[in-house]
Amino acid sequence: MSSESLTPLLRSKSIAIIGASNTPGKIGYLVLKNLVDGKYPGQIYAINSRECGDVLGIRCYRSVLDVPGEIDAAMLVVPAARTLAVAEECGHKGVKALIVVASGYSEIGRTDLETDLVTVARRYGMRVLGPNIVGIMSNSDHTHASFAPFMPLPGRAALVSQSGALVIAMSAASHVRNVGFDKMISVGNMADVNFDDLVRWLDEDDQTTSIAIYVEGFKNGRLFLETAQRVHKPIVVLKAGISAHGSVAAQSHTGAMAGTGKIYEAAFQQAGVVRASDLTNLFDRTLALSLQPPMSGDNLMVISNGGGVGVLATDAAERCGIPLHFAPKDLQASLRAYLPEIGTAMNPVDLTGMGGSPEYFATVRTALQHPWVHGLVVLFCDVGRDDPMEIAATIKRAMDDSAVVDKPVTLSFIGGAETERAIRWLVGQGVPTYGAPDTAINGIAALHEYAHNATLAAEVFTRYSDVDEAAARAIMGQARTAGRLHLTEVESKLVFAAYGLPVVATDLATTEDEAVRLAEKRGYPVVLKITSHDILHKSDAGGVKVNLNSAADVKAAYRTILASAQAYKADARIEGIAVQQMVPSGVEVILGSVNDPAFGPTMMVGLGGIFTEILQDVTYRVAPISPGHAQVMLEELQGAPILTGIRGAAPCDRTALATTVSRYSQMIIDLSDEIAESDANPVLVYAEGRGLKVVDARIILNRLWTRGDSIALEEEVAQERK
Amino acid sequence: MSSESLTPLLRSKSIAIIGASNTPGKIGYLVLKNLVDGKYPGQIYAINSRECGDVLGIRCYRSVLDVPGEIDAAMLVVPAARTLAVAEECGHKGVKALIVVASGYSEIGRTDLETDLVTVARRYGMRVLGPNIVGIMSNSDHTHASFAPFMPLPGRAALVSQSGALVIAMSAASHVRNVGFDKMISVGNMADVNFDDLVRWLDEDDQTTSIAIYVEGFKNGRLFLETAQRVHKPIVVLKAGISAHGSVAAQSHTGAMAGTGKIYEAAFQQAGVVRASDLTNLFDRTLALSLQPPMSGDNLMVISNGGGVGVLATDAAERCGIPLHFAPKDLQASLRAYLPEIGTAMNPVDLTGMGGSPEYFATVRTALQHPWVHGLVVLFCDVGRDDPMEIAATIKRAMDDSAVVDKPVTLSFIGGAETERAIRWLVGQGVPTYGAPDTAINGIAALHEYAHNATLAAEVFTRYSDVDEAAARAIMGQARTAGRLHLTEVESKLVFAAYGLPVVATDLATTEDEAVRLAEKRGYPVVLKITSHDILHKSDAGGVKVNLNSAADVKAAYRTILASAQAYKADARIEGIAVQQMVPSGVEVILGSVNDPAFGPTMMVGLGGIFTEILQDVTYRVAPISPGHAQVMLEELQGAPILTGIRGAAPCDRTALATTVSRYSQMIIDLSDEIAESDANPVLVYAEGRGLKVVDARIILNRLWTRGDSIALEEEVAQERK
Repeated sequence: MSSESLTPLLRSKSIAIIGASNTPGKIGYLVLKNLVDGKYPGQIYAINSRECGDVLGIRCYRSVLDVPGEIDAAMLVVPAARTLAVAEECGHKGVKALIVVASGYSEIGRTDLETDLVTVARRYGMRVLGPNIVGIMSNSDHTHASFAPFMPLPGRAALVSQSGALVIAMSAASHVRNVGFDKMISVGNMADVNFDDLVRWLDEDDQTTSIAIYVEGFKNGRLFLETAQRVHKPIVVLKAGISAHGSVAAQSHTGAMAGTGKIYEAAFQQAGVVRASDLTNLFDRTLALSLQPPMSGDNLMVISNGGGVGVLATDAAERCGIPLHFAPKDLQASLRAYLPEIGTAMNPVDLTGMGGSPEYFATVRTALQHPWVHGLVVLFCDVGRDDPMEIAATIKRAMDDSAVVDKPVTLSFIGGAETERAIRWLVGQGVPTYGAPDTAINGIAALHEYAHNATLAAEVFTRYSDVDEAAARAIMGQARTAGRLHLTEVESKLVFAAYGLPVVATDLATTEDEAVRLAEKRGYPVVLKITSHDILHKSDAGGVKVNLNSAADVKAAYRTILASAQAYKADARIEGIAVQQMVPSGVEVILGSVNDPAFGPTMMVGLGGIFTEILQDVTYRVAPISPGHAQVMLEELQGAPILTGIRGAAPCDRTALATTVSRYSQMIIDLSDEIAESDANPVLVYAEGRGLKVVDARIILNRLWTRGDSIALEEEVAQERK
Repeated sequence: MSSESLTPLLRSKSIAIIGASNTPGKIGYLVLKNLVDGKYPGQIYAINSRECGDVLGIRCYRSVLDVPGEIDAAMLVVPAARTLAVAEECGHKGVKALIVVASGYSEIGRTDLETDLVTVARRYGMRVLGPNIVGIMSNSDHTHASFAPFMPLPGRAALVSQSGALVIAMSAASHVRNVGFDKMISVGNMADVNFDDLVRWLDEDDQTTSIAIYVEGFKNGRLFLETAQRVHKPIVVLKAGISAHGSVAAQSHTGAMAGTGKIYEAAFQQAGVVRASDLTNLFDRTLALSLQPPMSGDNLMVISNGGGVGVLATDAAERCGIPLHFAPKDLQASLRAYLPEIGTAMNPVDLTGMGGSPEYFATVRTALQHPWVHGLVVLFCDVGRDDPMEIAATIKRAMDDSAVVDKPVTLSFIGGAETERAIRWLVGQGVPTYGAPDTAINGIAALHEYAHNATLAAEVFTRYSDVDEAAARAIMGQARTAGRLHLTEVESKLVFAAYGLPVVATDLATTEDEAVRLAEKRGYPVVLKITSHDILHKSDAGGVKVNLNSAADVKAAYRTILASAQAYKADARIEGIAVQQMVPSGVEVILGSVNDPAFGPTMMVGLGGIFTEILQDVTYRVAPISPGHAQVMLEELQGAPILTGIRGAAPCDRTALATTVSRYSQMIIDLSDEIAESDANPVLVYAEGRGLKVVDARIILNRLWTRGDSIALEEEVAQERK
């Protein structure tokens, strides 16, 4: 749906409060009072079917149908049981949007009421915000359509929050924390209007420069991801429930290895979105993102008037992933001209306690104008030498004077009440200013992360055309027909092969003689592997024999494997014994996929052996994945040096591996209605130019774990947590 | 030196300002004015040899020798060049302590002036604080003996800071951040009075409940560590320069593998000290540590009036190492009685937005009184329902009413100006209250970390008496006599063996026949290894042959090794070929030691192969190390499961390994004047009860890198950073 459909909701020209009340303290009173006190510029109508006297000087009607003029948005503060009838009336009246404040819907299990409400709304082309929300606030539109006691401190950020209590608390705390918001929107149960709708609308909004999101769980994470990739403004997300959420995803084997936190992290990076680690961090990062440009490079310069805070900033920069480098010689020389003798220009630049306005002015301007510098953090400690306000004005003047507008600047001012005044003034001037060096570094790190993730998000996935989806589907269809959800190794490899994955071809033998025939077809040496849905760990069951060089070897191995398997599990149904050509050893890699409840088809890449088993050294990305992004995954692994070659070993064919990951990702997208989870384990990767081989493969088909079910389950769990 | 000697310095009855001035703005004026305005209760004397008129109503003398009464402390604000003469006069006068504000000493390379000053002071029994400091502030003593413009907000914490600028900034910021300090002490260059002196004195001080430290580099980290272990109050340390500091230690091979940051981290844990990650964190943790008791257990309960903040607190608790657990059934049942129907009692306890004073009162009291609960975090979001001040008073009343005083409580209050007032009131009542759930969790995590580290710090190391220090020294003496600082493998193993480490005995052969004789003495199979100080990586040089089963094998291997070594490095001086019994394979472990510039003899423990080489999965502790603490080291390794047994492998003999680590640590302590660095690599660890074997050993003796040198180097580097 076009984001324009949200304009009557988010920037209404007229609004009706259905359930308006004359009784102070009631929500129907509070909302009306807030609108009136906030000087809502449009027409306000009070609606109350029973006790209808004028409210706060506003003419009250019994029904929206009685209202003479048009109504853009109707705010419903009536009980859940009455909303359907009211929504029908609104539809008749031609209302364009419903803001459903009332609770008593899916959050208490009444999903039916929510579905019915949306059905009615859709029939009349109305959008629905909520239910179970606090409302909408916009400083620039003078709209306080909520029951929150305060409007947020005016600013350039927008907040979209799944928790209503947090909207109320953050609108109040914005004043204390000195972080300005133009808009705050409570999304509640998201029966209709969702994060992605709002993000698209806010991207077009002139008053919004950045978007802060508080999310507990997405209805459709993939849609959000795809929308965020197209948005031009920075988005910072605080995802709550990372720790508890892990228990849901643990139901799927591969996901359980690392928890879904890693998938969210990957998805946000793919979306070009910046993460906030906690509420404090959300405020801090919003301040920087709403006021300053992205930091498009890795060279951060720090200027301070004290060694101590300079060192703390240096430590923080390393922690935040933007370690300081020494400034180039020419820049050092230019800066040194402005420093006292005991100062240093290496980076951090130390003006020392003797550094005052002239030194700040000259060094800030010089640093900003130098092409090496991509971002600047300026630290000031009030050591009783200068008026903090004067230093503040000086820094702002130096920024303006530099005429550089595409490099971010954040500041740390430490001191008492006068310093606090300087901080407020600076923020008012559009310069994010914090009370500690680490938070100033964190602020600029958000701008760096934004530029970095936006670049990654812009990576394009190009579909592979040389795939045979129909062949893959036919194989899976046969298994379903046979009543199986677990494909055999042979079947799994055929599906993989249909997508161009370099599998080691494998055939199934059901007699000794057939095994010999197949071995001779493939060529010796061969490997024999037990094939049984009742035996998951083949080696443990003595079900694998390698390096078989003759018909006699194959026959003996066949018998031994059968005997071992029966000893291991007497009642195991054995489909046969897989015969496979033996391939040279290489670096072991594991690829796998899950259908994540929030993001859908998602891939995992890890190194074999202890890396995956003990260290959980695996990395995730939501499919599809371009080969370039797959390379980033490989670099992220702790064991990355294994792939680049250690102790004189040749580097692995990472190009081939990245392509395989990319093809695999297309497979799980194309077949997402079929594949619940899968893995290629092990994949043997050879030296550069020599490719790789998928030695074993496994695919499990969807049963109950379809998209709708998983979302319902996620919601259920989210509900339990509340 | 006894900490009592600091009382005349830190709690003087009379103070002389030498260099007192009538000129506003001068330091000699500021200090005097601060003392007078701060209502210093003792006698103040102004001293100025030249322009001596009365200053601010204080009688001025030309010299301390002219002062009629006794002088406890003299504050020197005269130029560095004059301090020696002034110190002599102070000595004559019987002054007990010098507070040397003046700069121009070691921080600009004039270490000589500093040494001379301390020499004079020692002669007269005077202690010296500084030089290069801001001074001393104490709210309870009404002493503002500094040129900082503000006294800190009164409270129970003490700050000891190596950066003067930070003292000034933090005293001002304490008001803004609402974290109270009774004392702030600037230690500057620490020519005499050091962190450990101050920590000992503050431990005795009735007005101090916790100690915050800002440190860039210790003069003697080991002394601080040992002192801190004996202190009864919580200490929180912000160590600056972790990132840059790594470059110093990189000079020593083992240290370079992970950087010295890990050694500081280990040392602070051993000291029973809590870490602060940054300046914000130092304030946050100080607030909790100064007001609340330690959290002596892992069960944290969270009570909130909003699902969102409850989830955020749950995430933060996991991040901070105190993940939430479900409350026991009986506690859940007790709590449920006080909750609205839609609330939950599982933990986090959610009172929902309907939760007001009665619910907070009952749940806080119930939780505190339940034996399962070790600590409590209470979250409040101002949703416009209740007066934050009333909720604050209720929570405090519930705490008092519970009569529980040995469990910590921290709070998060989110809202506007009224909430801020409630926060201030609560802090005044001794309840640490923050503005976000994550910071409240972080505060209680500090109290948890304190209890945890204090337990570890109480681990006692018992010396092993069955060691032969003399034998070890004799071997090292022989090497020195021979002009060598690198011991051979055979020598290194003899030193290790003298400390009871289970080395695989090795002999040095210089002829083929000798090699055969030695092999026959030890018994086949044997291993031959090249022994040359010019060949560090034996295997790379083809210098190792294993599994030799006969005289013929040994002779052939001897010749091959010599030939390979010569081919590898033609001019290598070859001492001979080591003959060693071959031992069964086991889990590979690496032990190593360095002489850390700050903490002295320090051990490293890691797993062999990729764990150390690729993952830097190593852990450090300052020696000596008890077997119990060595077990903690083993648990810390990422690869710990390798030692506990994976994939059905038997668990390793961790008891034997821990004992070996402990013995090794005694060796590097006893021989710290000799051993610069050492390692046992590999150590093969066998199944439980079967011990371990040190297969190869290496010891390098001290040359220039003696204690004094390394400290000088550290200072030099610290200086460069400023």
